[in-house]
Amino acid sequence: MVRTAAYVASVFSLYIAAAMLVPAAVDLYYGHPDWEIFTICAMITGALALTVAAGTRGGAPVRSTRLAFFVVVVLWVTLGMIGALPFYMASFDLDLASSVFESVSAITTTGATAIAGLDALPPGILLWRSLLSWIGGLGVVVLGLFFLPLLNVGGFSYFRIESSDIEDRPFDRLASFLRALIAIYVILTALCAISYMVAGMSTFDAINHSMATLATGGFSTYDASFGVFDSWAIMWIGIVFMILGALPFSILILFVVRGRLDALRDPQIRLFLTYTTLIVLSVAIHRRIANDVPFAEALTTSAFNLVSIITTTGFVSEDYTLWGPFTVMMVFFATFLGGCSGSTSGAIKAYRFFVLGRMLQNGLRMLIYGRSVQPLRYGSRVIDEDMQRSVVLFMIAFFISWVAGSIALAAGNLDIVTSLTATLTALTNVGPGLGPIVGPAGNFASLDDYAKWILSALMLLGRLEILAVLVLLTPTFWRN
Amino acid sequence: MVRTAAYVASVFSLYIAAAMLVPAAVDLYYGHPDWEIFTICAMITGALALTVAAGTRGGAPVRSTRLAFFVVVVLWVTLGMIGALPFYMASFDLDLASSVFESVSAITTTGATAIAGLDALPPGILLWRSLLSWIGGLGVVVLGLFFLPLLNVGGFSYFRIESSDIEDRPFDRLASFLRALIAIYVILTALCAISYMVAGMSTFDAINHSMATLATGGFSTYDASFGVFDSWAIMWIGIVFMILGALPFSILILFVVRGRLDALRDPQIRLFLTYTTLIVLSVAIHRRIANDVPFAEALTTSAFNLVSIITTTGFVSEDYTLWGPFTVMMVFFATFLGGCSGSTSGAIKAYRFFVLGRMLQNGLRMLIYGRSVQPLRYGSRVIDEDMQRSVVLFMIAFFISWVAGSIALAAGNLDIVTSLTATLTALTNVGPGLGPIVGPAGNFASLDDYAKWILSALMLLGRLEILAVLVLLTPTFWRN
Repeated sequence: MVRTAAYVASVFSLYIAAAMLVPAAVDLYYGHPDWEIFTICAMITGALALTVAAGTRGGAPVRSTRLAFFVVVVLWVTLGMIGALPFYMASFDLDLASSVFESVSAITTTGATAIAGLDALPPGILLWRSLLSWIGGLGVVVLGLFFLPLLNVGGFSYFRIESSDIEDRPFDRLASFLRALIAIYVILTALCAISYMVAGMSTFDAINHSMATLATGGFSTYDASFGVFDSWAIMWIGIVFMILGALPFSILILFVVRGRLDALRDPQIRLFLTYTTLIVLSVAIHRRIANDVPFAEALTTSAFNLVSIITTTGFVSEDYTLWGPFTVMMVFFATFLGGCSGSTSGAIKAYRFFVLGRMLQNGLRMLIYGRSVQPLRYGSRVIDEDMQRSVVLFMIAFFISWVAGSIALAAGNLDIVTSLTATLTALTNVGPGLGPIVGPAGNFASLDDYAKWILSALMLLGRLEILAVLVLLTPTFWRN
Repeated sequence: MVRTAAYVASVFSLYIAAAMLVPAAVDLYYGHPDWEIFTICAMITGALALTVAAGTRGGAPVRSTRLAFFVVVVLWVTLGMIGALPFYMASFDLDLASSVFESVSAITTTGATAIAGLDALPPGILLWRSLLSWIGGLGVVVLGLFFLPLLNVGGFSYFRIESSDIEDRPFDRLASFLRALIAIYVILTALCAISYMVAGMSTFDAINHSMATLATGGFSTYDASFGVFDSWAIMWIGIVFMILGALPFSILILFVVRGRLDALRDPQIRLFLTYTTLIVLSVAIHRRIANDVPFAEALTTSAFNLVSIITTTGFVSEDYTLWGPFTVMMVFFATFLGGCSGSTSGAIKAYRFFVLGRMLQNGLRMLIYGRSVQPLRYGSRVIDEDMQRSVVLFMIAFFISWVAGSIALAAGNLDIVTSLTATLTALTNVGPGLGPIVGPAGNFASLDDYAKWILSALMLLGRLEILAVLVLLTPTFWRN
């Protein structure tokens, strides 16, 4: 089991090693001496990965679900560790806990940063953050579309491209689908970057922010995030591409390849767009009335910051916690939501809320009429017992993780708002929490190592839909 | 439907009218002029109740579940309104919203108070608060043991005395069981009062606090609650009787009548005692280490305040939010817990956590082994699909209510901690929340009317296990 997991992790680490050459080239281009550090990191990683890969070749193929769970968890932990290498070794001084935190935050597309003073950072390391985040985004789409469904985690099987969710099957083989997926991910990122440039961003900023946008990651190259641009056009571009990043990529592909707009009628997409619209409008209208903000401004800034949270991106344009308690409360609950399954976004996600809503509806009807059970419907399909069970299972695991993480942080003497929201924002891969430390105007840099390690673990836990990690912690998993 | 509901409500209102004569007698004894007000209230209520009862006699008997839901909700709302009459009319000046809040808080055994300056209040009104709370406690036991199971709300049917949960049936008829229930409730209250007196309370304080203890209500006759007594003996007496109030009364009766200790082996009782012990110990040990408090003191005050919250009583002995973030976090999560079903305590309750825990355990096993479903067990019985569904249904409704209530309070400009915890503590019928306003050192009196009405509604919602109210809000309920 360990052999196979090590092999898979080392093969993917080779890709990461290759990716390290990109910031190396950029630093070289900008004449920053850190290019040497990236090159050294790439060589160390590459050599290590090759050695491990050579030594662990020929392990058992991944056939059992037990092995698959183990491989996925080991892979994500490894990528998080390796990604931390350049942060730890780079010319600015970052301790181990912060380096791992930053790397895990990137690879899980969380976007919480433990680095204060981004504006003064060399270009290579900034690009490394964005690149790692972008790779993490791609990774999680693949994970969500192919692996987690096989493991029955989170009921994703409803949205697998292989299923008959969409009646004809445009992709017979995994490889051709993967190619289409990567192509559309690259194209959307490029479109986003070009739009940002047209709206006034520098090329470097546009590339970095477009990667962080599509990955719903949220890393910026400035401490003030989108606040530095102060441009409504840039905000609306961000809004559009964050929403695209939170849509199921399988459906985006169908739309692009076949031009089929009806694929967008998926109930989870509708629900996601509905709650996003409702929240943005309620905050905008509330600010118009209570704070007397002009509506166009209220709408733009509300849309940008709330969409950023709902899609689990984490960009901010200003300190929205100053908009009053109503906004703060909406932000808090928006942190739970997330986008669609099979996207780069995290959190609980629209389809789970859809299933829970149907269960509530049906349950109340049963209370009145007794035992007449109607089947629950997801569009034209039936939500079976397995699906309901997996959603409930996730919710239980989610709240247990939230409680445990919050208590652990509070035991480290963080106040209740910081503990609750830092745990939540890590678990949902959003980025900012609430309060002076982890809020939109704060920075995770000031947390101690203890909190950073806990939050790193929570980000990984959330990214792997919690259950994939939790099974590894049961005694049952390690028996026989 | 309205006819039957009005009849039932008016009959019970007669009892409340009779109960008003008790504080009238007490005020007369102490020579306080408010005895006239109580007498007037009793006459108004009695006359009104008799008129309505006479006018609505002969309605349809409660046979359909629809009617039962309606009757229960109308009854509780009516009792809350009528109980408010003496508060509104008494010699001290209390506005309508506060009067209803106080009455609803009593009848739902929440114990949050909207009156500042309790120490200066006349004895009659103090006793009225305790008495209403005590009646509410008895009412909710009856509701939990007889009505809600029939309505399939909250899966209480597992703990009905009529079920074969305990193999032989000591009570063939409802009336004899009700007599036993009232007897044990009165005896336990008397025992508690005597113990308090022996430990140093005045007779008046002992009677008031014993009623609030057994009802897990939490009303005190002092603003500082148990802080004024400053006695470890009184705290430990409180701890014992709060725990007794949070145990299923059906099992208490079996224990007393038959001397059967094995009835205490019920899984929900074990789980309740386990989490209570763990939380109390962890807080006590943390305070011993972090705050250097002597262990005996740390244990006594932690046990008193945490047991008070877990059992949804709401007494406080000091401002425990000053004990540090770890305690605050434990208090926050303890607010969700509650005691056992069929007791006077509220919140989510031990048996629901038991069922959710079993579902998680089984779900994780299924993720590893595929489809091999073992039946979930509650002691020697099987937790069937219906039971699981009803627990999940409650949890969904609980969190929706929490979200909706918190947003509503935040829209009224209350900060996030106050909004979240005031909603939570109302919904779980605990009493104190967190923060300067609704925390253990605060007082609900300073909230505006808007917040008080919302919180009154939430207390009723929580007391009726949410679902009993929620069904009334569905269009299905009102169709045909």
